[in-house]
Amino acid sequence: MLFRDAAKLVTTMAVTVVPARYGRAARVPRGRTIAVINTHGNQVVDTWAFAAADPAEFMCMEHTRSVNSTIYPRVGVAMMTNRRRPVLTWLEDTSPGVHDTVLCACNRQIYEELGIREYHRNCEDNLHEALAEIGMTVPFTPAPLNLFMNTPVGEDGGIVRLAPVSRPGDRVTFRAEMDAVVVFSACPQDITPINGDGRLPQDVEFLIA
Amino acid sequence: MLFRDAAKLVTTMAVTVVPARYGRAARVPRGRTIAVINTHGNQVVDTWAFAAADPAEFMCMEHTRSVNSTIYPRVGVAMMTNRRRPVLTWLEDTSPGVHDTVLCACNRQIYEELGIREYHRNCEDNLHEALAEIGMTVPFTPAPLNLFMNTPVGEDGGIVRLAPVSRPGDRVTFRAEMDAVVVFSACPQDITPINGDGRLPQDVEFLIA
Repeated sequence: MLFRDAAKLVTTMAVTVVPARYGRAARVPRGRTIAVINTHGNQVVDTWAFAAADPAEFMCMEHTRSVNSTIYPRVGVAMMTNRRRPVLTWLEDTSPGVHDTVLCACNRQIYEELGIREYHRNCEDNLHEALAEIGMTVPFTPAPLNLFMNTPVGEDGGIVRLAPVSRPGDRVTFRAEMDAVVVFSACPQDITPINGDGRLPQDVEFLIA
Repeated sequence: MLFRDAAKLVTTMAVTVVPARYGRAARVPRGRTIAVINTHGNQVVDTWAFAAADPAEFMCMEHTRSVNSTIYPRVGVAMMTNRRRPVLTWLEDTSPGVHDTVLCACNRQIYEELGIREYHRNCEDNLHEALAEIGMTVPFTPAPLNLFMNTPVGEDGGIVRLAPVSRPGDRVTFRAEMDAVVVFSACPQDITPINGDGRLPQDVEFLIA
């Protein structure tokens, strides 16, 4: 079964593990797909995308909400840049479809508020660290797409923070609509139950095919 | 009535008109108040704030929503920066309290989508123009606080675009919690009813006291 084995090899090579509490960036050519796998099920994945040609163009939550007239993206929706171009289209979502576009990436100040005195890893620093690893810098932190984050907005506008409802192996798949750089952070939040009641950040994986 | 006249003079001097379709920036020392007056009632005012000491610190919708656990700020709430410090606190709101934190500033691409072929003024360019007038540049466009914008989010996450419910003379007053630069744009949107069914952008005013 040479072909099957060869295919398996290629697939295996393209999987990237995002270690718990860390971020990873990758270049994705236009037309390729990116699957994000919630290996253990409980893990929030802060996600960013930038135009490879010019990172001043980036996946932008407020323009995505404007174009799609919703705060909840779902399969079929295109995530838009700040210049109103599609960057990632949702092709597949095997999870219950609960994700967030309204809350911030955690940053060092949040952990200070939570009483942590030493340095605590955080999604904002993970973004910039991961970009630096592939030789990129951006002078600000765009609002993230918080995959698998369960923070519903009530009719009165109130935001509730709940544990994820995603399950081990749940997967979201996007198509890159332009040459892009994507960044994923396995959120290091271990003080609140945002990554599950066990408060234990876990690895996730992504696969570019 | 010398005192009354003197007070009137001071008050008059501190009023700044934001012409319809344009933006204006101002420096506001910590502890001072800024009132935004919806002179004609129908006008959406895209609003930004930056730390005067370092505009890389800016009023940030996603951190404000996170700190206050709501998408709808109201009197008593502090608007937060991306470094989790309060920048503007809502002291007063004589309008019905309908404002937006989830949608983008209009930009040139939005008017292209709407079929406008020549240049159309827009809130994003107004922000950067107004900052340039006081000698500042920022390398990106933060998500705005859209004062008086009536775009409620339903329980299903859907966003509806309605005409403002504010009335002529309605006013929102903030206290500056740090030395800040504030920017107001009288939104140039005249294709959709976001600035009222008359689709006629109007002047607004702000007053620093």
